[in-house]
Amino acid sequence: MDRSSAVPLYVQIRDGIIAAVQQQALAPGTRLPPTRDLARQLGVTRVTVVKAYEALTEAGWAEAHVGRGTFLASDPGPGAAPPSEPPAAAAESTWQTLARLADRPGITNFASGAPAPDFFPVEELRRAINAVFDREGAAALQYDAPEGLLPLRQQIADRVGCAVDDVLVTSGTQQAVDLITRTLLRPGDVVLTEAPTYSGALEAFAASGARVIGVPVDRGGLDLDALEQLLQTAKPRLIYTVPAFMTPYGTALAPERRSALLALAAAHGVPVAEDDAYRELVYDGDPLPPLRALPGGERVLHVGSFSKLMAPGLRLGYVIATAETRQTLVARKQMADLHTSTLIQHAVRQYLASGSHEAHLRQTVAVCRQRRDAAVEALTRLAVPGLTWHVPAGGPFIWLRLPPGQAVVDTYVCALDHGVAFAIGAAFFPDRRDHGWLRLNFTLHEPEQIRQGISRLAAALQDVRPEQSVLPL
Amino acid sequence: MDRSSAVPLYVQIRDGIIAAVQQQALAPGTRLPPTRDLARQLGVTRVTVVKAYEALTEAGWAEAHVGRGTFLASDPGPGAAPPSEPPAAAAESTWQTLARLADRPGITNFASGAPAPDFFPVEELRRAINAVFDREGAAALQYDAPEGLLPLRQQIADRVGCAVDDVLVTSGTQQAVDLITRTLLRPGDVVLTEAPTYSGALEAFAASGARVIGVPVDRGGLDLDALEQLLQTAKPRLIYTVPAFMTPYGTALAPERRSALLALAAAHGVPVAEDDAYRELVYDGDPLPPLRALPGGERVLHVGSFSKLMAPGLRLGYVIATAETRQTLVARKQMADLHTSTLIQHAVRQYLASGSHEAHLRQTVAVCRQRRDAAVEALTRLAVPGLTWHVPAGGPFIWLRLPPGQAVVDTYVCALDHGVAFAIGAAFFPDRRDHGWLRLNFTLHEPEQIRQGISRLAAALQDVRPEQSVLPL
Repeated sequence: MDRSSAVPLYVQIRDGIIAAVQQQALAPGTRLPPTRDLARQLGVTRVTVVKAYEALTEAGWAEAHVGRGTFLASDPGPGAAPPSEPPAAAAESTWQTLARLADRPGITNFASGAPAPDFFPVEELRRAINAVFDREGAAALQYDAPEGLLPLRQQIADRVGCAVDDVLVTSGTQQAVDLITRTLLRPGDVVLTEAPTYSGALEAFAASGARVIGVPVDRGGLDLDALEQLLQTAKPRLIYTVPAFMTPYGTALAPERRSALLALAAAHGVPVAEDDAYRELVYDGDPLPPLRALPGGERVLHVGSFSKLMAPGLRLGYVIATAETRQTLVARKQMADLHTSTLIQHAVRQYLASGSHEAHLRQTVAVCRQRRDAAVEALTRLAVPGLTWHVPAGGPFIWLRLPPGQAVVDTYVCALDHGVAFAIGAAFFPDRRDHGWLRLNFTLHEPEQIRQGISRLAAALQDVRPEQSVLPL
Repeated sequence: MDRSSAVPLYVQIRDGIIAAVQQQALAPGTRLPPTRDLARQLGVTRVTVVKAYEALTEAGWAEAHVGRGTFLASDPGPGAAPPSEPPAAAAESTWQTLARLADRPGITNFASGAPAPDFFPVEELRRAINAVFDREGAAALQYDAPEGLLPLRQQIADRVGCAVDDVLVTSGTQQAVDLITRTLLRPGDVVLTEAPTYSGALEAFAASGARVIGVPVDRGGLDLDALEQLLQTAKPRLIYTVPAFMTPYGTALAPERRSALLALAAAHGVPVAEDDAYRELVYDGDPLPPLRALPGGERVLHVGSFSKLMAPGLRLGYVIATAETRQTLVARKQMADLHTSTLIQHAVRQYLASGSHEAHLRQTVAVCRQRRDAAVEALTRLAVPGLTWHVPAGGPFIWLRLPPGQAVVDTYVCALDHGVAFAIGAAFFPDRRDHGWLRLNFTLHEPEQIRQGISRLAAALQDVRPEQSVLPL
């Protein structure tokens, strides 16, 4: 290993193994050493060895078998790339490689933020689109106003409890956050968010040149004392909050804190954007009203979505905003993509009008609740020492906190070996640091697979714990 | 009239007329004076009077009848707003009010940039979407990769003649231009465009803080001497060109200038973005290959769209870009809206695979050619003195140039009185000034309506010519 070389360590390992095969020092079909062992032997992180094995696999020199390890190909064949070619992983960040590895067959994947496709109202949406073609014909395929289709905006206004004029239809939550960013933030501006928060929002803020400061959270949500102090010292231009279920505690921002947050923001003249994508995915009790619906909430920028409880591939969301901000948002929307697909807007309008959405919503919540219960039951039963977690009251995620000193990335690599994947919490923290959290999306699998996946995770956690990271990532 | 007042002149006129009605100085049902006469009498522009009459109509105090004039309501009734309320037009720019007036019933509207809905392949797209639901089920409603659906990208690559890796699917041309803007331009950067060009691009450039300098065009397209001089003096960061049919001459950028443009841009190290939305809408001869397909064109950012020759309400376009720029574009795309609607991408993929698109394209071109011929024939027959125009070889527009000294806005107002509307050319020039051009979209109407609309326009042109603007707009 040449640590001073410009060649990445994982490429050096890959090329060393290929050279060993070519010199017949390693026989075809040989099982490569476990990543832990080779990492210790070479004095590198397990992630580096994982990337080396992945590059070998990708180039046809090796084959990975979940739960059994990585084996040299019995015959690399003509498809095996010569070692001089850069691996595809060269264009990826380590994070991207790690995420890609979670998609291998045999892995129980809790990492994705996507909703389970088995909930999507496929036939209902098909019927809705056909009804739209029947009634609207070519009009459903023509340009539309930038703010969106009036009857859909009316339905959204009725659901949220606001004036129809205040509704702007967007291509999903991500676009809503990006439009807010482009409307309110300039380079150097400070944004306050929960830590952790939605990673897509962090990316939009960062791209605008804004600086994001994370506000600590507890089981009641945002720590308002910390928020107040930051309002005084950091002079933020925006507070971005996910009041329902994004905190690692899986709880909603407590009712009394909602009013207090609005009062604090008003006192400091700072606009509040609430991203309420998961509001209706609540297992215990009823959804809380959005901040926007509270006294003093009239100026809140309320972001909602049909991604999580209808279908994300539609790309349909909305932002509710008052007159002057909404006008600017609409102008930005027009500049960004003219308007959201007319056909998709008509389809969702028709689907909502058909009345089947409420039943679909109830059923989705019921199935997700069963899956939450299965995950909670498995975690309780397996009782991994030192592991901390909380029962989520809503949303698709359980967050687990590792025992102090244990690195999430090491756990991730070990979990892949055991056939299970999760989301690394660092992606959701404004400082992108490893605060010991990992995230499971429990809505993606049937209860039996959830139990199996969590058993694998428990095994991985037992396996990794004696093993500290050799080098920081 | 109080010219020193903060109350806009058109509101003063509106309120004066309402006061006259209330004091019974004007009887209900009275025909208001022609805008020309009242403008001359009050020493204001006709646009001001038009806005005043529009505000009266909107508040229920008057009724407009295309071709006959504006009449005081016979009974303003309880719906008539008291004069103290600001008219809705207060929130609009004059341009927006003028555009809105073109949508009144009875107006032959040549103003819109939209394609005619009678061309949309409604039944073919419906069949395609149903086939997608049959085959893909819930997968057609799930999240997708930011760069887009692989088989659709392959179809686009095959049509454009590029590598599939280089294709990024966007939510229409506007998003493609916005992503390019966000990727390449910083505040203060200079962009060179044809003058006139696509107004949506001008808005995206302006919002990024870039400065747009218009390059003169002639019948062969961009004036390359002027371009070369600007490349030396203005140090642009981007050349944005619409090589097919957007110039006021309706011609495509000449083949020899295409190579020369690429050579000039390469010599100065300036990237070229080509917006080729109308390439296939060609009436005389075959479409020219895009700049991207020429030798030396490998680094051109090629923007294309399914809006103009399939259906704009789908919101589907693409940008072709090479490795490093494309990677940045993809990251921006993900930040902007994660990805374009999965369902829409599947639908277009299925529609293209069905093979009916090529026949649809041929038919659309044939019908648009008939409409072009009708417009050309009517303009030739009516032979308005001093009016200059050119037969477009492709695209949906004929541009007309007014006799020197005649203001386009005056002509617009007069044209509305005659029951016809067009697009005011100033919107398409980087300096937003009135260069005497107006634009007709001849694809929106059947030949008989085109002939009637152009007769109305000729009458308006005869009517306005003795009448110069009293005040500049």
